[in-house]
Amino acid sequence: MMPNIRDYIRSIADFPHEGIIFRDVTTLFADARGFRMAIDQLLHPYAGIPIDKVVGLEARGFILGGALAHQLSTGFVPIRKKGKLPGAVISEAYQLEYGEAVMEVHDDALKPGERVLIVDDLLATGGTAEAGIKLCRRLGAEVIGCAFVIDLPELGGRAKLEQMQMPVHVLTSFEGA
Amino acid sequence: MMPNIRDYIRSIADFPHEGIIFRDVTTLFADARGFRMAIDQLLHPYAGIPIDKVVGLEARGFILGGALAHQLSTGFVPIRKKGKLPGAVISEAYQLEYGEAVMEVHDDALKPGERVLIVDDLLATGGTAEAGIKLCRRLGAEVIGCAFVIDLPELGGRAKLEQMQMPVHVLTSFEGA
Repeated sequence: MMPNIRDYIRSIADFPHEGIIFRDVTTLFADARGFRMAIDQLLHPYAGIPIDKVVGLEARGFILGGALAHQLSTGFVPIRKKGKLPGAVISEAYQLEYGEAVMEVHDDALKPGERVLIVDDLLATGGTAEAGIKLCRRLGAEVIGCAFVIDLPELGGRAKLEQMQMPVHVLTSFEGA
Repeated sequence: MMPNIRDYIRSIADFPHEGIIFRDVTTLFADARGFRMAIDQLLHPYAGIPIDKVVGLEARGFILGGALAHQLSTGFVPIRKKGKLPGAVISEAYQLEYGEAVMEVHDDALKPGERVLIVDDLLATGGTAEAGIKLCRRLGAEVIGCAFVIDLPELGGRAKLEQMQMPVHVLTSFEGA
């Protein structure tokens, strides 16, 4: 029997803080079958749907986004933490547990009307994904979906994105995060 | 005529410091033809050569590495800045212009004898790539090559890696960096 995506994900206690169970996708990505399965399954809902660009959220979303863009023969656009992109950017702040953080995209990275798929490894509170959707929309792009390997439903990210009329695709979810 | 890789790379003055010309690959990655051309050309020297894993250096090496691993049907292993990986790691320090930095890899990410291709966007002084090679070798892996989109030959990275008996593959180079 083929292993499941979940079987490749490692759980690590007390990272980055005590009491947190970190769901580690590096063991999924390091396995040739696991990585291919993840990329294939991330794309299943979008077969036959035009996509102009894949947008990846820093940093694990870059690994998935590079593979998805290559598979789809599209370009890849990074959304990065503040100060990392060299050109002119637009910014969106989002809430963290303590304080806030800022995500940025180059202001010429997407053209009005381009159809975009956003990808990241993990959907938790949805803060970075929400910032990413807003950045793409401010550039005039149409975000046709957000795809994640893992959902932590108790943290409410999926509900938050669906309130933004955003179709969400996840491969597996973990309770008790 | 097909455009050249260089035509897609944007040069930005005074980033991250005054007097530096930053070679920006995001314009290459954002273009569907540019991105595919880069991935294809990065793999040319390795056609027919067994590769077990692609190792990407944080963060732009993740975009390329995800695509290369997908194309080769291998697993992908990230080498990250200190403190980002959740599991047990091994570390290598390397020199920066002022001070030093540390790269890390999970201590179980590569098995002895595995054949590894390391990828990043830019070869400058070669400090991060040297740290990456050392980390892979300490885990017993055989690094069969290091591939970069851009070489800045005046900064000496290629010479440094070749002193480590490391075959280096670059797609284009810029003088006067």
